[in-house]
Amino acid sequence: MDGPAHGVLTGMVTMGRTMVPAGEGRAVRVGAGRRVRVVDVEGGQVGDLFAFAADDPREHLSAAHTRSATSRLFPQVGESFVTDRRRPILTLAGDTSPGSHDMLIAACDPARYEGLGAPGHASCAGNLESALAGMGLSAAVVPQPVNVFMRIPVEASGRLRWLSAESRPGDAITFEAVMDCVVVLSACPQDLAGINGDGPTPMAMDVL
Amino acid sequence: MDGPAHGVLTGMVTMGRTMVPAGEGRAVRVGAGRRVRVVDVEGGQVGDLFAFAADDPREHLSAAHTRSATSRLFPQVGESFVTDRRRPILTLAGDTSPGSHDMLIAACDPARYEGLGAPGHASCAGNLESALAGMGLSAAVVPQPVNVFMRIPVEASGRLRWLSAESRPGDAITFEAVMDCVVVLSACPQDLAGINGDGPTPMAMDVL
Repeated sequence: MDGPAHGVLTGMVTMGRTMVPAGEGRAVRVGAGRRVRVVDVEGGQVGDLFAFAADDPREHLSAAHTRSATSRLFPQVGESFVTDRRRPILTLAGDTSPGSHDMLIAACDPARYEGLGAPGHASCAGNLESALAGMGLSAAVVPQPVNVFMRIPVEASGRLRWLSAESRPGDAITFEAVMDCVVVLSACPQDLAGINGDGPTPMAMDVL
Repeated sequence: MDGPAHGVLTGMVTMGRTMVPAGEGRAVRVGAGRRVRVVDVEGGQVGDLFAFAADDPREHLSAAHTRSATSRLFPQVGESFVTDRRRPILTLAGDTSPGSHDMLIAACDPARYEGLGAPGHASCAGNLESALAGMGLSAAVVPQPVNVFMRIPVEASGRLRWLSAESRPGDAITFEAVMDCVVVLSACPQDLAGINGDGPTPMAMDVL
């Protein structure tokens, strides 16, 4: 990718648009009360989103604690994602997509691609590490991500299906920060399974 | 609880029955190829089960990676639970219960009970820490547990319901170790929500 503007890190917050090139990851700092809009620029692209408390990145958005708090597989608009310390970190503020998102599937990682016969392949876990390193941070663990636009329907039997993302060009999901946080988005580099349709494409994060 | 025999730690493995008093946690060492049978002694009791690689307890059974590997909310008999490094650690070998188990809900922890107005209440996260400490170990994080006998049906809308465990006295779920591991079971101390029916009761782990 060339050309796109990058969000500007002003003191402790990021403002404006941060482009996330296809298959790569980026991090932004979002102050409490601000919103971050995650845009699927070309459509059909899954993003693995992570959020960490700005003052202690050992505290992170936790899918399991969020399910426990909301009694849902995925929050509804107006509901919050919470951390592993059960503190609200992001509220789901809006969603223009058809509404398929996932919090069941782990981030792709080097072991996943080794299993697919592609050692050394880019991964969302690797992108998370790189994006945090760019802010001088590191995560103790790779949390279960919020997989925006990822379509994993759950059948009554408990079976999960892996379908291509159905988000359209420009579709966006917007989160409001409840605490000062660092949000990382990986435009999933998966090109060996069909979740990203015809292949990985870029995404964007707008801090509003 | 008084009286029950405890599993005998012989060298690096545990053999025989380890009683888990109501509301407490215990750990056993299970060698590769051996089985551990988790028994709901009186029925209607949820157990939070965790498993760690014996040679490096930073590697742990991961619900998210297990869902990714099995494409199911919970493995079927014959399928394996994998670690956060995507290595099989336990295989589901048998289940005499009605079959309700959960891998969606986080372990109860001090923050959960503070939210319920009961600070200082015993928790599965605290039981995990204590049981590992008894073996000279500590976990870097509290993994999403395997909640045996926990009944959290998923509705088509994505809504989760919290129902009382329907396991009967003596019902058991059995796991076969794929690698040398430490298995921790917390007989969930939750008595402020209905998941444990009339209240917490003891469980047992038999290493076979």
